[in-house]
Amino acid sequence: MESKKRFAVILAGSGVYDGSEIHEATLSMYAIAKNGGEYQLFAPNIDQHHVINHLTGEEMPEKRNVLIESARIARGNVTDLNEFDAILFPGGFGVAKNLCSFAFNGPDCQVNPDVENALKEMHSAKKPIGALCIAPALIAKILGSVEVTIGQDADTAEAITQMGAIHVNTNHGEIIFDKENKLVTTPCYMLDATIAQIGEGAENVVKTIMAL
Amino acid sequence: MESKKRFAVILAGSGVYDGSEIHEATLSMYAIAKNGGEYQLFAPNIDQHHVINHLTGEEMPEKRNVLIESARIARGNVTDLNEFDAILFPGGFGVAKNLCSFAFNGPDCQVNPDVENALKEMHSAKKPIGALCIAPALIAKILGSVEVTIGQDADTAEAITQMGAIHVNTNHGEIIFDKENKLVTTPCYMLDATIAQIGEGAENVVKTIMAL
Repeated sequence: MESKKRFAVILAGSGVYDGSEIHEATLSMYAIAKNGGEYQLFAPNIDQHHVINHLTGEEMPEKRNVLIESARIARGNVTDLNEFDAILFPGGFGVAKNLCSFAFNGPDCQVNPDVENALKEMHSAKKPIGALCIAPALIAKILGSVEVTIGQDADTAEAITQMGAIHVNTNHGEIIFDKENKLVTTPCYMLDATIAQIGEGAENVVKTIMAL
Repeated sequence: MESKKRFAVILAGSGVYDGSEIHEATLSMYAIAKNGGEYQLFAPNIDQHHVINHLTGEEMPEKRNVLIESARIARGNVTDLNEFDAILFPGGFGVAKNLCSFAFNGPDCQVNPDVENALKEMHSAKKPIGALCIAPALIAKILGSVEVTIGQDADTAEAITQMGAIHVNTNHGEIIFDKENKLVTTPCYMLDATIAQIGEGAENVVKTIMAL
């Protein structure tokens, strides 16, 4: 029996404005399971950049931990990334606020060292990488000359270009597949999308990786 | 052009141990959108019963609001339930801790009056009701003599029977359809399930309601 393809899914909290986008994370996990793969969740054990009231959009006077809040999406133990066949980043502002500082510093952002090491390790091992929504900006910062999409936002596309990557405009559910880097990206909620379109984008990324 | 069927989805926070189960909520919304329906999210504006660290399972010395945390799953404005064609309850401990006190008082539980009124209103109007995971216990408490499933947990099934309802054992993805009450229930994470099985259960509930 062929063993199942194993995905490491990297979370950044739980909620679009200060963590991982919940639909993108859930529908990625669903697409992986439905297409015969397995996943393990990972998140850094650090404070969130801040806590946003998702009803009003205002900052709340609280502290929350990225690992603890990510566990709401599903409990994840950090294990050795070497065991995994692929790495996948759902989007959400947490990717640009907690995993790196792209939301504040754009192309000059800092990256969480654990996340940087994890991604570089998978890339050196020539294992496939998936990134949804704003997460391709993080990949561009770490890997430089890759081809990605975040949809059609001109400012973000420009910042990605400044980090040495190539940006290609896409529409709902479409993917950019950088074959040389085994990197698959899709815009998700970087466009004004429905949850069915998020499911389509997540599934197209996962199916492309499963086929490798 | 036929208008889309509109679902009211009732949330109880964000996270399985103190709120709505995130996979069940997301995959219900996904199943509704994918099958041509529309949804609006609702949640009561009350404090959560408590806050659970989802990594350790321990209680945290915090206060969180059910409406604000539910907004992490997706922003929801409370509008008139009369506009809706169906009502759907994803599961999660929050249903039994925030929407009612079933987790603590079993068959003698108290129910949040807004939730009780919303459900009774839909039921009187002979509109369909969907409930996943532990949520059928809440429905049984409010409506009494209905036929439901929460899977195979004997204690919960017994409590449901004590509240005047009939419980039927089911397995992954299976539904119980109480035709007279237009009530569709499925066990989801009340069984030891995969996320693909959650997707199947949510889709079977939604498809049954769409076909009415």
